[in-house]
Amino acid sequence: MIQTPYLLFLGDAPDPLAAKVAQGIRDWRPENCVGQLRMDGCKADMKLPDMTLEEAKAAGAKTLVIGVANRGGKISAAWKKVLVQALEEGFDLASGLHNLLRNEADLKAVAEATGRTLHDVRVPVVEYPIADGTKRKGKRVLAVGTDCSVGKMYTALALDKSMREAGMKSTFRATGQTGILITGDGVPLDAVIADFMAGSIEWLSPDNDEDHWDVIEGQGSLFHVSFSGVTLALIHGGQPDALILCHEPTRTHMRGLPGYALPTLEQVRDAALSMAQVANPDCKVVGVSINTQHMSEEEAARYCAETEARLGLPTVDPFRHGADRLAQALAGV
Amino acid sequence: MIQTPYLLFLGDAPDPLAAKVAQGIRDWRPENCVGQLRMDGCKADMKLPDMTLEEAKAAGAKTLVIGVANRGGKISAAWKKVLVQALEEGFDLASGLHNLLRNEADLKAVAEATGRTLHDVRVPVVEYPIADGTKRKGKRVLAVGTDCSVGKMYTALALDKSMREAGMKSTFRATGQTGILITGDGVPLDAVIADFMAGSIEWLSPDNDEDHWDVIEGQGSLFHVSFSGVTLALIHGGQPDALILCHEPTRTHMRGLPGYALPTLEQVRDAALSMAQVANPDCKVVGVSINTQHMSEEEAARYCAETEARLGLPTVDPFRHGADRLAQALAGV
Repeated sequence: MIQTPYLLFLGDAPDPLAAKVAQGIRDWRPENCVGQLRMDGCKADMKLPDMTLEEAKAAGAKTLVIGVANRGGKISAAWKKVLVQALEEGFDLASGLHNLLRNEADLKAVAEATGRTLHDVRVPVVEYPIADGTKRKGKRVLAVGTDCSVGKMYTALALDKSMREAGMKSTFRATGQTGILITGDGVPLDAVIADFMAGSIEWLSPDNDEDHWDVIEGQGSLFHVSFSGVTLALIHGGQPDALILCHEPTRTHMRGLPGYALPTLEQVRDAALSMAQVANPDCKVVGVSINTQHMSEEEAARYCAETEARLGLPTVDPFRHGADRLAQALAGV
Repeated sequence: MIQTPYLLFLGDAPDPLAAKVAQGIRDWRPENCVGQLRMDGCKADMKLPDMTLEEAKAAGAKTLVIGVANRGGKISAAWKKVLVQALEEGFDLASGLHNLLRNEADLKAVAEATGRTLHDVRVPVVEYPIADGTKRKGKRVLAVGTDCSVGKMYTALALDKSMREAGMKSTFRATGQTGILITGDGVPLDAVIADFMAGSIEWLSPDNDEDHWDVIEGQGSLFHVSFSGVTLALIHGGQPDALILCHEPTRTHMRGLPGYALPTLEQVRDAALSMAQVANPDCKVVGVSINTQHMSEEEAARYCAETEARLGLPTVDPFRHGADRLAQALAGV
């Protein structure tokens, strides 16, 4: 568990997109952010107070989170200076970078000397159990997609927000690096060993109040041949009561697989529901989330309306329309 | 890749069942076995020549394979003496035990000093790629089960044997510890990191002659909530041309999951085929393999005949009836 609140490290981000992890934290957990730390030439801005390490410490920040993707996969010397200083001033460090903090000899040495923690959220730190399939108390919803990267995390975070605003009990359960940095904990499912995948999701979403919802972050797609096993482990380990279908209508082929067409929403509905009902016979498909970022306002509205009529399920783009209708659909489950 | 031929180490096996890994090697790859090494009190016998390390070395053995499950999960002091001596006499060691050879300080030190290799087949030694879904040349068959441990490995090995006896080109591709020890290589799929599961199977079953069959060892079940993700990765990474359904009719619930009933063969057929056709639209279900070990001869014959009539697919117990009819079914694909 990563200690909050955070100081967001934006480094020398060459453009706003490079800082999308920081943006995710800023958008979804502003209460976790006391400020931002930008180096010379930084082109990203979270509209948070610019702070030195000392100022952030005084404001209560516990962890410096690397909210920016590094260039060429390396942790630069310029970054290093700030990171080392942060450890010395009492911050933990958290990162979702491919290059692990713990593999940098200087950071490791300083962290040990100062007693601080290096959180590499790509690497599991828990020994997960093998799933035992026991029915847990409380309710769970999972977003399943026609493809990877169609908006499943965004949908889950928006849904969690709408549910809490509606007075429902809800917890977002992160299963990927960005989600873990946003909330401070979770399971880096793509890095878990095969036999323990479903068990890690059982661990992530334990017994809870009967009227509490875990909103479990989806990964991959049953129809994406590279990662489908991860998706099925989520469906069986998550034992969802409700599924939300996610789709990006303008995509011409599966992400990274030029020879593979996307499945229809109906195919995903049928495949995911029949698999989900193995673990939870009462599971239902309750709504559809469309990522309309490449469509005009009018096209988006038409596409959602048509999909809603065709599937008989509330259909929204949570970014354009909010997720309130999906939250309402869950209130009825 | 483990060097063959083997000397099979049976240790002080308390009963024949404890040596079932050795039995598997003996049954399916007798040409890989020059002899057996038994300690005082050993209750297992592979009907191979009893040999000392020196005799086995003279007979050409390259690797001492631990073909016996140890008691209480420990590598005993009595075993150690033999294992150390084997390394000193020029044998590699191979083991599928949970306790890794490499974690035994003495074995590690002697292996390093003598330049021998410790093969712990539970642990992947290859950096597998992420699956890219590209169609490979040659043909592939995969056994999919209603449950774990219903006879998928046995079916695959029997099928491989029948195909080769019929003059077909066939290679058994191991995906579990016992299969790897039997053949000398393979992928320990249950220990592979989630993102690389399907890629490891693409790696295991590369391009081959158009009339060559890879018989890929199945794992888990789409309907076993603990391990279903592993099964789906096998289906998508394997991109099989043919599926064989495996079932054990007397089981009252899913293995290790008392609350879970077994699916029907029809459910497995439909779920596995629709998922397999994502990676290979031409995939077909070609036969059924029934594990009738808990049935009388008469019950077994009746069950297979009824299943054959119901599903319209050749149905055999490969242990009782051989796998020739399944091989014939593949010859037509």
